[in-house]
Amino acid sequence: MPKISQKGQQMPASPIRKLTPFADKAKLDGKKVYHLNIGQPDIETPEVMLNAVKNIDFKVWAYTASEGTLAYRSKLTEYYNKLGYNIKPEHILVTTGGSEAITISMMSCLDAGDEVIIPEPFYANYNGFAHQTGVVVKPILSYIENGFALPPISDFEKLITEKTKAIMICNPNNPTGYLYSKEEMEALKQLALKYDLYLFSDEAYREFCYDGREFISPMHLEGLEENVMVLDTVSKRYSACGARLGCIITKNKAVLAAALKFAQARLSPGMVEQIAGAAAVDTPDAYFINVKNEYTKRRDILVQSLNKIEGVFCPNPGGAFYVVAKFPIDDTDAFCQWMLETFSYENQTVMMAPATGFYSTPSGGLNEVRLAYVLNADDLEKAMVCLEEGLKVYPGRVE
Amino acid sequence: MPKISQKGQQMPASPIRKLTPFADKAKLDGKKVYHLNIGQPDIETPEVMLNAVKNIDFKVWAYTASEGTLAYRSKLTEYYNKLGYNIKPEHILVTTGGSEAITISMMSCLDAGDEVIIPEPFYANYNGFAHQTGVVVKPILSYIENGFALPPISDFEKLITEKTKAIMICNPNNPTGYLYSKEEMEALKQLALKYDLYLFSDEAYREFCYDGREFISPMHLEGLEENVMVLDTVSKRYSACGARLGCIITKNKAVLAAALKFAQARLSPGMVEQIAGAAAVDTPDAYFINVKNEYTKRRDILVQSLNKIEGVFCPNPGGAFYVVAKFPIDDTDAFCQWMLETFSYENQTVMMAPATGFYSTPSGGLNEVRLAYVLNADDLEKAMVCLEEGLKVYPGRVE
Ligand SMILES: Cc1ncc(COP(=O)(O)O)c(C=O)c1O
Ligand SMILES: Cc1ncc(COP(=O)(O)O)c(C=O)c1O
Repeated sequence: MPKISQKGQQMPASPIRKLTPFADKAKLDGKKVYHLNIGQPDIETPEVMLNAVKNIDFKVWAYTASEGTLAYRSKLTEYYNKLGYNIKPEHILVTTGGSEAITISMMSCLDAGDEVIIPEPFYANYNGFAHQTGVVVKPILSYIENGFALPPISDFEKLITEKTKAIMICNPNNPTGYLYSKEEMEALKQLALKYDLYLFSDEAYREFCYDGREFISPMHLEGLEENVMVLDTVSKRYSACGARLGCIITKNKAVLAAALKFAQARLSPGMVEQIAGAAAVDTPDAYFINVKNEYTKRRDILVQSLNKIEGVFCPNPGGAFYVVAKFPIDDTDAFCQWMLETFSYENQTVMMAPATGFYSTPSGGLNEVRLAYVLNADDLEKAMVCLEEGLKVYPGRVE
Repeated sequence: MPKISQKGQQMPASPIRKLTPFADKAKLDGKKVYHLNIGQPDIETPEVMLNAVKNIDFKVWAYTASEGTLAYRSKLTEYYNKLGYNIKPEHILVTTGGSEAITISMMSCLDAGDEVIIPEPFYANYNGFAHQTGVVVKPILSYIENGFALPPISDFEKLITEKTKAIMICNPNNPTGYLYSKEEMEALKQLALKYDLYLFSDEAYREFCYDGREFISPMHLEGLEENVMVLDTVSKRYSACGARLGCIITKNKAVLAAALKFAQARLSPGMVEQIAGAAAVDTPDAYFINVKNEYTKRRDILVQSLNKIEGVFCPNPGGAFYVVAKFPIDDTDAFCQWMLETFSYENQTVMMAPATGFYSTPSGGLNEVRLAYVLNADDLEKAMVCLEEGLKVYPGRVE
């Protein structure tokens, strides 16, 4: 029997999905499970987008240009230029989800062995994509005490070596929900320029900024044109995760030319999705206002409920739809599994993502959990009661 | 300005697309261009498939399981088991096109530096995928004189080293259209078992076998269960290239588990596509009969016309919708470009793919061209007249 590759053996498993068998078992046992573990919102996809799918009128479901159709890229510039990005269709490469935007960008900018510095905790799959491309992730700790703000620039500088090629942020952040300020973005800009680094800006959660706070992209900062790679997706923006539609935006022509070669090898992004994505640009403002109000309400419930639980601390994040909370527990993996496997309260339990999966520093996040507020307010409240009861009786509780 | 990666710099550009600027220019100049260069069929997608798209009735366009929905994988087993593959849903991993089936399989089975032997000429993007994953392609020449039959097994054995991990075939072949016989498949089986190698079987063109000839997959051969990776796609089967839907089939559990980790990192294949793909399994037989008749007719026109042209030789392939023909020319890249840039006949010209892109041996295919019969019979005939005239006056003609 032929052996699998080392690369396959060492590929990290998705930490978000590794508890799934226990959740399945809990459901089989008749427990109701509140899913706060994954970033799959329950929010409806805009009607204009779904209608575009229903109204397709072609006869041949054909490849599109590898960089995406001109029609879609043109329509996208409308969306981005309203945000002040000041781009043209030729600055966009359409990808199969934000996931492919990340892998293609990594391959275009970094070689195997090159390093990317990423504030930690970070989106778990960055580890997988880095492993896949041979890129080395250099994590830089951010702290729950100050809400996971950007670590001091001097901490970044300590990590910079000859191999450092990029800094990567996710803004607002998954898993922490942290929204970077204008000052933090300016500091990153200076750093990128000083060391001639790429600045990867994963903006999957751009639309979800709360309390009237402004979203600042590196695209808003002058003088950084050759350094910025925006990695984007319609997954969260339009609650269209299953569309697998994203893009890379950059004004760096050499990188985009390299990225296009990777894109050409895989031929084309989805055709129906690009039609739907173009239609989605005309989503009425009211949609986003409603969604933001809904998420704000949920965040408030979650953050308030969590901070009322004895021994729990949860900062109040400015964006996305996640929080990372600190629990009075010894080991978050054991705790999250125990909640599914052993615990129940009125025949219910809660599924959460252990924060360890979002750290690459060993034992980082051992007493932290990520919760996604992708359920309605009512269910969230019930889930929080359930969690409180669980924490009371968890055998691995520490004070 | 930060530099692009070596990987990006050295990534091979798609040979099929590199003449596109010249074609665009020809069209701007008012020439009619017959596109025989790419594998984008003009055949209509089955109505059941398009109707499934039009009839979607969900409200949230959500991620699916990373391995694909159980509904789709179950329906796919119906299709495959009719062919005698004898598989279950758990043997299938749904991918974003056949392209992703190839990259995920390469990463799961081979490490950077490991070798895969591929009969040459082969699908050009294998080079790109290998470059991307660090896999080394060892080409093994097949010859136009015998219609690009499988090279002798002893030729394979000469190439086998400690680094050899897999043999890869595309059957029926792109670019040659060659359909491997039962005996050739048996010989490959013995070879894979003898050296404990994976056998990658790219079956993108499985449905297109002509003259009543049978398609033999390694899935039909006993004792090879742990070695076979079938790489499949709906792109050509249902003329649904823009759906980006494919799959890996294997009974090797360890490989599939590794592949799933790569699949989990990129989250999910397309949701609408899986619904459409499931519906496509119920495409009426009449659809395939018509399509096969149409392609057979076109192949016959193409092969006969080509062989009538002085100095041209074209074998009669058993499958797919491509032929590779030998032309009395010095340099196929120059010739194909000249046809677009300089030549016209009654204000028309033909776009073809230089065969050099399908060889990785230097100067392989220098006097060969790939033609895809993706146009109707009428246009094909006109294109052949045009080509004949072009060959008469081409300055780089050799006898
Ligand atoms: C931070 C971040 N980036 C990228 C992605 C990838 O999303 P997709 O591939 O669905 O566009 C996700 C998905 O959860 C995410 O949270
Ligand atoms: C031999 C072969 N394999 C794989 C593919 C990839 O197809 P897709 O990614 O559209 O499924 C193609 C496309 O032309 C092909 O010809």
